[in-house]
Amino acid sequence: MEREHSVGLVQTQFFTFAEDEPMRLESGASLGPVTIAYETYGRLNAERSNAILIVHALSGSAHAAGYHSDDDPKPGWWDECIGPGKAFDTDRFFVICSNVIGSCYGSTGPSSINPATGRAYGLSFPVVTIGDMVRAQVKLIDHLGIDRLLCVAGGSMGGMQVLEWAAHHSTRLRAAIPLATTAHHSPMLIAFSEVGRQAIYADPAWNNGDYYGSGKKPDAGLAVARMVGHITYLSEESMHKKFGRRLRRLERYGYEFETEFEIESYLKYNGNSFTRRFDANSYLYVTKAMDYFDLSQPSGSLAASFANAEDVKFLVVSFTSDWLYPSYHSKELVSALMAVGADATYLDIQSTWGHDAFLLEVQTMTNLIGSFLERLVREERVERPLPIAPAITAPAAPARNGVTA
Amino acid sequence: MEREHSVGLVQTQFFTFAEDEPMRLESGASLGPVTIAYETYGRLNAERSNAILIVHALSGSAHAAGYHSDDDPKPGWWDECIGPGKAFDTDRFFVICSNVIGSCYGSTGPSSINPATGRAYGLSFPVVTIGDMVRAQVKLIDHLGIDRLLCVAGGSMGGMQVLEWAAHHSTRLRAAIPLATTAHHSPMLIAFSEVGRQAIYADPAWNNGDYYGSGKKPDAGLAVARMVGHITYLSEESMHKKFGRRLRRLERYGYEFETEFEIESYLKYNGNSFTRRFDANSYLYVTKAMDYFDLSQPSGSLAASFANAEDVKFLVVSFTSDWLYPSYHSKELVSALMAVGADATYLDIQSTWGHDAFLLEVQTMTNLIGSFLERLVREERVERPLPIAPAITAPAAPARNGVTA
Repeated sequence: MEREHSVGLVQTQFFTFAEDEPMRLESGASLGPVTIAYETYGRLNAERSNAILIVHALSGSAHAAGYHSDDDPKPGWWDECIGPGKAFDTDRFFVICSNVIGSCYGSTGPSSINPATGRAYGLSFPVVTIGDMVRAQVKLIDHLGIDRLLCVAGGSMGGMQVLEWAAHHSTRLRAAIPLATTAHHSPMLIAFSEVGRQAIYADPAWNNGDYYGSGKKPDAGLAVARMVGHITYLSEESMHKKFGRRLRRLERYGYEFETEFEIESYLKYNGNSFTRRFDANSYLYVTKAMDYFDLSQPSGSLAASFANAEDVKFLVVSFTSDWLYPSYHSKELVSALMAVGADATYLDIQSTWGHDAFLLEVQTMTNLIGSFLERLVREERVERPLPIAPAITAPAAPARNGVTA
Repeated sequence: MEREHSVGLVQTQFFTFAEDEPMRLESGASLGPVTIAYETYGRLNAERSNAILIVHALSGSAHAAGYHSDDDPKPGWWDECIGPGKAFDTDRFFVICSNVIGSCYGSTGPSSINPATGRAYGLSFPVVTIGDMVRAQVKLIDHLGIDRLLCVAGGSMGGMQVLEWAAHHSTRLRAAIPLATTAHHSPMLIAFSEVGRQAIYADPAWNNGDYYGSGKKPDAGLAVARMVGHITYLSEESMHKKFGRRLRRLERYGYEFETEFEIESYLKYNGNSFTRRFDANSYLYVTKAMDYFDLSQPSGSLAASFANAEDVKFLVVSFTSDWLYPSYHSKELVSALMAVGADATYLDIQSTWGHDAFLLEVQTMTNLIGSFLERLVREERVERPLPIAPAITAPAAPARNGVTA
């Protein structure tokens, strides 16, 4: 466990709201109570002006940085960019990451117990949208006593949440960093989502979403869904580099159907390990939320959606080999931002890593995000937090959280 | 049924070989007897020099043109390009199309009865390669009394067979038309194949390939495999054009998991209808054959594989929006052909239709193939067939076959 530039030991926290009055969802349905799992790193400054919200992609969690225990083999999912001296420098910023509703990492989702029945929601969980996820995050930010975030940042589905924040909660953030994302999910993205869902439906163990406590889970279907996803996160070039046509532990073709090529083995391993950490129903709900995402609606004009975002500063990034969220999505977004006079910096980064580049191009992202935040700090006069943690308003924050090792 | 430029009523024929001496496969395994389903259109000329072999893609059959009955709702799979006055002009050429071994449209494959057991082969069917498929086609051509084909043509997996013919049977053809294909299956292609296979394995009805006669078939798994395939045959742009984010029979989101977007409905319909016409085990075998395809082996040099093909004339075509078989595959192929001094014409056609373009860009393909064949006819002095059909050597050809309506 490399701790030198790590936020160290962290703990997931929980915030529950909508206990008396349920949360009204975009669909018209109600949900309550709603629990949000979140983590924080670094310290809030006296002006409460240095908070950055990190929003995650499809399979992410609140655990974006640090370790949950001393023998934790892996740090949080964006640890390379969050920590002392990193892109999101926890010596300067108070970084928050929360798990989206509908997911399965502590926030309320289909695997949560429905208090009305005492059983897991399953498919009785209401369909949630990116807008609903973000409105739950707004509640969390309220709870943490933060009036205005310095920045909201994330890639892929995280980028959609960033854009939702900028479009519909523009007074609550100063800057937005949408990475490798889109303002409206394309038919190809919907197609890949739907194939993943169909793979889950096709698994008899799915049982119409009612499998919790049965001892069976639709692992086979979920693994296929994840394999499809994994292909789309890579590029043809990165597959050539990583796998080529190499065989696994074989000199020549076996002329049978066992896993032979390294790419097959990689997909199968990732598909199977995903079933140990993710819930199949959450896969349905979260992909559905992405499919519904279309900021150009209801007006038909993307620029109209950003009409109130003219004071938000944007850093928009796409990657040349990302064929899932091709660069033209970001260019279209930047045009809309320009149309409303927003301050937008756009970079189309040359990379061979496909969609995964936003997580893998660490040095490039560190430089880019670092200098963008540097500028924000200067322009918005963001003070450093006090060297000793003040009594921040996050009520349930355990003492160890955010303390670097 | 539009018959004006159709080859009219046709009938699938069957040729069986390796009855006494089994066919030795690339794997070292043996297979016999081997039946090849095939169709022919047009007439052989007196010199037997006007025969063109059409080779099909993953899910194709011998039925490339014409109709099987008067009330047949659909013609053969490449009917737009095969017929009187069409790209493959049946007034001038004797066109043959055969179903590959391993498939399920009349040629020997995993759903065929193993004469040794009296039961369907299932997974006891040996793994076949593109090389094996082509060697079976050579047997068919021998049987039809054709010493040298004027041309072998096909797209996608058909293109692989074309290249296999040119590389390993170069004295048996004058020209080759590989379309939207590759000389070696890339890791991304293998990845998509494997996901399709995993979807089939994941279906309990697959039962390790032993489902024939059980009343159950792995339809759910095969449908998912086909849906994945369908996405890869389209392009992002063609999906935007064909489907966009349009909903099916809905004004607004339903906030449930039923099929809502048109693209979802299209995929589901195609996935399901595929299960009524294709065998899941054949899907495994045919995709595996494609995955194994690598003409640069064993020498490591693609040019070396075409060392004997310097007298073959090539028309190589790729399509700009084909991300499954991107143009650089064809460019690499053309470089190898140039290196051995082969006569190669290459076109990278601007198209928005993705991989499917080789079937959809009918006018472009008609012009291209038409003028390439025109040149061949001139250079190779290919005579027209006699106006009245001579006694051709195709022994089992029924009288109606090849007669235009």
